Amino acid sequence: MQPLNILQIDASARAGISGIDPRGSHTRRLTNRFVERWQAARPQDSVIHRDVGQQPPSPVSGDWIAAAFTRPERRDEAARAQLAESDVLVDELLRADLIVVGAPMYNFGLPAQLKAWVDNIVRVGVTFGFDRGRQGEPYWPMLPPGKRLVILSSRGDYGYDPDGRLGAINLVERGLSVPMSYIGLTQTHSIAIEYDEFGDERLRASILAAETAVDDLVEELAQNFAEAAGREPLPV
Amino acid sequence: MQPLNILQIDASARAGISGIDPRGSHTRRLTNRFVERWQAARPQDSVIHRDVGQQPPSPVSGDWIAAAFTRPERRDEAARAQLAESDVLVDELLRADLIVVGAPMYNFGLPAQLKAWVDNIVRVGVTFGFDRGRQGEPYWPMLPPGKRLVILSSRGDYGYDPDGRLGAINLVERGLSVPMSYIGLTQTHSIAIEYDEFGDERLRASILAAETAVDDLVEELAQNFAEAAGREPLPV
Repeated sequence: MQPLNILQIDASARAGISGIDPRGSHTRRLTNRFVERWQAARPQDSVIHRDVGQQPPSPVSGDWIAAAFTRPERRDEAARAQLAESDVLVDELLRADLIVVGAPMYNFGLPAQLKAWVDNIVRVGVTFGFDRGRQGEPYWPMLPPGKRLVILSSRGDYGYDPDGRLGAINLVERGLSVPMSYIGLTQTHSIAIEYDEFGDERLRASILAAETAVDDLVEELAQNFAEAAGREPLPV
Repeated sequence: MQPLNILQIDASARAGISGIDPRGSHTRRLTNRFVERWQAARPQDSVIHRDVGQQPPSPVSGDWIAAAFTRPERRDEAARAQLAESDVLVDELLRADLIVVGAPMYNFGLPAQLKAWVDNIVRVGVTFGFDRGRQGEPYWPMLPPGKRLVILSSRGDYGYDPDGRLGAINLVERGLSVPMSYIGLTQTHSIAIEYDEFGDERLRASILAAETAVDDLVEELAQNFAEAAGREPLPV
């Protein structure tokens, strides 16, 4: 059974971990739990930790866009420098089998620093293809198949699940899954803590339910990947 | 008739203007057209221009959050410094009667730099209130009533309007209107250019239609505001 690569992305502006540090992050609590459980189940797997909450990627600039749309062999040194940070983030994504993202809800959507990560890894000619003269859609996904996305979120209020009272105004999970699906990562799992701003029994119950769901998901995915590793890759 | 304040926000990473500069921004083309037409119709009004595309606001940090949730009279110098940039952005918003935002679609949502603006202007005790012990919802909008939001967008592909083939995965207009509505700005108008990535006759037709819609909206809003200015403010 081949070792897997896990990419843990944390996006909370809060550095601490809820339950351990005062005012710690709920999403860091869930990503850390996921990865610890995973490593216990599959100690042979490697983990890369990318903390965009503490070290926000640069938003893409006009020069970045111009460099990305220049063919690699025609990029000068300045153009290559523009893309250097994006190259690192894309490389981490390409190498990962499982991407575990801590994505707290900030004003109903992704934290700006996590959207900056998204804008850096959607790269023409690398994670998606584009050809204006192509029949049908002019673009296509380029991520290798078989990767999984796990979104671990937290919300101040409650009822943000798709069928909940506020599901229609929750832009977090779709803010990640829509662009990731565009580049070819279509298998997504989501777990969230709610009621943070109430700080009462409902929050405690929500944390417990989310932690249980994380444990179950680790078990399920570790099993799935083990099965998949025993098979030949499917033709694409 | 009282002069009004217009806040023009540009978020495109591209500095140039489409139709004038090579690879210029379609959203800058629309915001500039809106503001030029407005100033022709109402030369007495003032305009503030905030360019988050060229000068991205800092994403909110853990220290920012701690400072924002500290009562103003208890903030030390470091806490006040954390909020200085946000203070400027909030002040511009509070003073504005009409907020005109150029919001290009980046990977189906807001550019990271525009989300950083959103995360900086949603400020507890300033643009929304929060009281855990309050009956019903623990938060309430604090923006003064009567403001209008105009979202001028552009999209590479087509069919992203609410009833269009890709409307469900368009997170741009809602990415702005949902948090702005949360702080009390509920009246929103939207216009968008589509087909950018095809660069053909459909793009040219879409630009023309969007420019006509901008001209019509300027006329309508200039008339509305003139009427509203002749009345007493409504009780809230």
